Amino acid sequence: MAISVSAREVVQALGGELIGSPELQITRIGALEGATPSTISFLANPRFEAQLVRSRAGCVIVAPVYRDAAATRGAAIVTPDPYLYYARLTQWWVGLTRPATPAGIHPSAIVDAAARVSSSAEVAALAVVEAHAIVEDGAVIGAHCFVGAGARVGALSRLAARVTLGAGCSIGARCIVHSGVVIGADGFGFAPVDGRWEKIEQLGAVRIGDDVEIGANTCIDRGALEDTVIEDGVKLDNLIQIGHNVHIGAHTAIAGNAGVAGSARIGPRCSIGGAANILGHLTLAEGVHISAASVVMRSILKPGLYSGIFPIDDNASWEKNAATLRQLHALRDRLRALEKKT
Amino acid sequence: MAISVSAREVVQALGGELIGSPELQITRIGALEGATPSTISFLANPRFEAQLVRSRAGCVIVAPVYRDAAATRGAAIVTPDPYLYYARLTQWWVGLTRPATPAGIHPSAIVDAAARVSSSAEVAALAVVEAHAIVEDGAVIGAHCFVGAGARVGALSRLAARVTLGAGCSIGARCIVHSGVVIGADGFGFAPVDGRWEKIEQLGAVRIGDDVEIGANTCIDRGALEDTVIEDGVKLDNLIQIGHNVHIGAHTAIAGNAGVAGSARIGPRCSIGGAANILGHLTLAEGVHISAASVVMRSILKPGLYSGIFPIDDNASWEKNAATLRQLHALRDRLRALEKKT
Amino acid sequence: MAISVSAREVVQALGGELIGSPELQITRIGALEGATPSTISFLANPRFEAQLVRSRAGCVIVAPVYRDAAATRGAAIVTPDPYLYYARLTQWWVGLTRPATPAGIHPSAIVDAAARVSSSAEVAALAVVEAHAIVEDGAVIGAHCFVGAGARVGALSRLAARVTLGAGCSIGARCIVHSGVVIGADGFGFAPVDGRWEKIEQLGAVRIGDDVEIGANTCIDRGALEDTVIEDGVKLDNLIQIGHNVHIGAHTAIAGNAGVAGSARIGPRCSIGGAANILGHLTLAEGVHISAASVVMRSILKPGLYSGIFPIDDNASWEKNAATLRQLHALRDRLRALEKKT
Repeated sequence: MAISVSAREVVQALGGELIGSPELQITRIGALEGATPSTISFLANPRFEAQLVRSRAGCVIVAPVYRDAAATRGAAIVTPDPYLYYARLTQWWVGLTRPATPAGIHPSAIVDAAARVSSSAEVAALAVVEAHAIVEDGAVIGAHCFVGAGARVGALSRLAARVTLGAGCSIGARCIVHSGVVIGADGFGFAPVDGRWEKIEQLGAVRIGDDVEIGANTCIDRGALEDTVIEDGVKLDNLIQIGHNVHIGAHTAIAGNAGVAGSARIGPRCSIGGAANILGHLTLAEGVHISAASVVMRSILKPGLYSGIFPIDDNASWEKNAATLRQLHALRDRLRALEKKT
Repeated sequence: MAISVSAREVVQALGGELIGSPELQITRIGALEGATPSTISFLANPRFEAQLVRSRAGCVIVAPVYRDAAATRGAAIVTPDPYLYYARLTQWWVGLTRPATPAGIHPSAIVDAAARVSSSAEVAALAVVEAHAIVEDGAVIGAHCFVGAGARVGALSRLAARVTLGAGCSIGARCIVHSGVVIGADGFGFAPVDGRWEKIEQLGAVRIGDDVEIGANTCIDRGALEDTVIEDGVKLDNLIQIGHNVHIGAHTAIAGNAGVAGSARIGPRCSIGGAANILGHLTLAEGVHISAASVVMRSILKPGLYSGIFPIDDNASWEKNAATLRQLHALRDRLRALEKKT
Repeated sequence: MAISVSAREVVQALGGELIGSPELQITRIGALEGATPSTISFLANPRFEAQLVRSRAGCVIVAPVYRDAAATRGAAIVTPDPYLYYARLTQWWVGLTRPATPAGIHPSAIVDAAARVSSSAEVAALAVVEAHAIVEDGAVIGAHCFVGAGARVGALSRLAARVTLGAGCSIGARCIVHSGVVIGADGFGFAPVDGRWEKIEQLGAVRIGDDVEIGANTCIDRGALEDTVIEDGVKLDNLIQIGHNVHIGAHTAIAGNAGVAGSARIGPRCSIGGAANILGHLTLAEGVHISAASVVMRSILKPGLYSGIFPIDDNASWEKNAATLRQLHALRDRLRALEKKT
């Protein structure tokens, strides 16, 4: 949807000090590179300072330190945290352009008579809402969603098309759940007996706080006996596996393809890189940061950045180094022997 | 659903020697920690022995060696394998609490006239069952499932909401398939020609045995010419990729995020850790266990535990060690030279 | 569907030089091993040459160098590239056996009045097509698919059951999209503020070229400001994560479980192995090949094969080597010290 707003409207909505014409019309948010005179852009990383001068953007959002540099080239909005300003600008922009949610239940949706759907909520085409499920004010249940018996979707939360929310599981307020997410499948629990596996039924549920975002095709398993818990403000990217009885502290962010095995406990304000894996029953303290593709095999109780990645190399070099790595302990012993000798 | 059972009813159903009052009322299965007087708990791991004494659980399931320790604190069920007893208890519990499957086809489901659905099976809301598909006695096809032409779902198997079972693929009896699973998408096969890829149509199917469980969003591709085969009792966790023409032996278990590339052959009673990867065309013998996040690059023909994980460390240490690793082969040569010299 | 074709019909359709009886009836395409007299098979890899003589296949597709070896054993088709011939044979075979797509909109599908669906396209049962979406000639929208507002599906492209194509995203001609794929979920973008995360709305879309294939449950996120772009002929396997603003060059192939983080730029004709990960904002030149499970942490501007995998070993050996690896930098220093001494 095409819109046009003035620079004045932007600062009226979002604050900041406007330099230049308040009448400047803005039709697009864009990067400094490739910007046009009707683009509003931002400088959040000093690395891109050189682009500021070259950019054709009609208006740029900058920190106070760049006030003069920005003013010499055209309109600007000065604000202490341009990246945060940009985030809020995108939210305001979407509020202007995204069509309002039509409240009500689509005639093709299958909503059990014993479900409780707020009159301000939307249940989209072909969704299924089972008995005793609760959909609170202003929530959106996307097309083809499945909301199991007794599940709860908090106020203003939005489930994209094709989300599964299992029986008895709950989502707080203002959450965003993307397509293909599965919340509340059985945790992976079996008892061995005579060379085969006996299923342990998973009797817990999944409890998700407020302001949580869950990326496409991510899975959060229900707990074995207690619940799996995702606290407020957690952000999960796509294709993440969260095992049963995991506990993720508030405002922790996890990137795509990562895995958290059963009963792991991740503190608040952690970050886990893409494709990283946290093994089961471990604890990560508050403020632990794990690099992409690293494997956490022991609890980490001290904040900081941790990594464990085999360095990539041309294949021939890698082959030689990897082969030597398989004798590394022996090499150490040989080094010791030499040291003794000399 | 809230229920209350007596200790007597438990042992009548599941066996074991009951110590203490048969009239004890149980309303919940729970861990030793956090248990209440109406909780039944279990001690399966000697590491938690100290919790046994402290626990407020009304009844505990223990091995004979803990009989006395348990008896002094209250009711107990003595059994040779408490973990297995716990597994069966959860199954019995679910049998009491889970509502019975309503047989029949939901009016919103789209079932082809040439499909064969047992009168004791359930096809839930908005499911699609194509021509010549077979749904056997007591099977459940969840909401929004897609059962392709000629596919077969064995007796008592349960597909959760939103499962795809491709044309011609089959699932045995008593299987559990979680939401988002895709069985029978095309294997990844292309012939290179002039710098682009020519598709190799995948003419095989997927054949899954009895008592198999498949976790949420896991994918099992159809074979190129022959079928991809998952034998009886295999347990697959969430978000696993099984390539075309893979063969997985009976009672093998694979944890979340793992990948098995095309034409790999995994023996029976193996275990593959989370995020581990098995490269294509390899063979794993019976009883091979692969640690989480390890990469199997050659066939493993001897039972045992195998690992290959870069150890995680604080980022600064990792950087130094990783940089040195890229010169490891040269270091070995220098060590050799020194050895010759001295 | 059972069919029978003559060897003559095969070469009439696909070319090649036929040796032996043109009347030979073929009912199956199969590997050399396990072939029957009515099987057509192929020899594409010299490693399997020994199987050629032993095989009971009625007809074999071979390169000129194997003409004599093949002729002595029965019918054969001689062609410069047997693997490519096999690929085209499977395509021709499917053309004979796969039922034609019934054009038209299934009565249970929910198609907005403002959507534009070609009269030669199919929209299957229970699919949802929103306003201003475009479905071009001969395209197939599978059961339970969701095609968002303003999205576009090019001519002859096929979406399997249960695909999400987000609002404003587009797919070119002749693409194949497997079940569970999510195109156009929000990229993972947040601004930190006071220990929590502020959402950056993702205003870009996803643009996919012609002849692209996307495997089951793969996710391609929409761009933050610009579009995420997948060029012509790209082949993506299952369970792949493609972050926002990624650009993948033409005819690049990526195997299952791989991840490409935001704003990475992968050149044309690359191959990325299964479970490999490309970190954000990196560039891979044309013709870069990454081994399975390797992590790309810096841009790679030179064509070639690159690897970085911890070698798997029996667990005890791995433990010793991994422990030593954590002191590798110190070992190097000790080696240096020794070298100085001697």
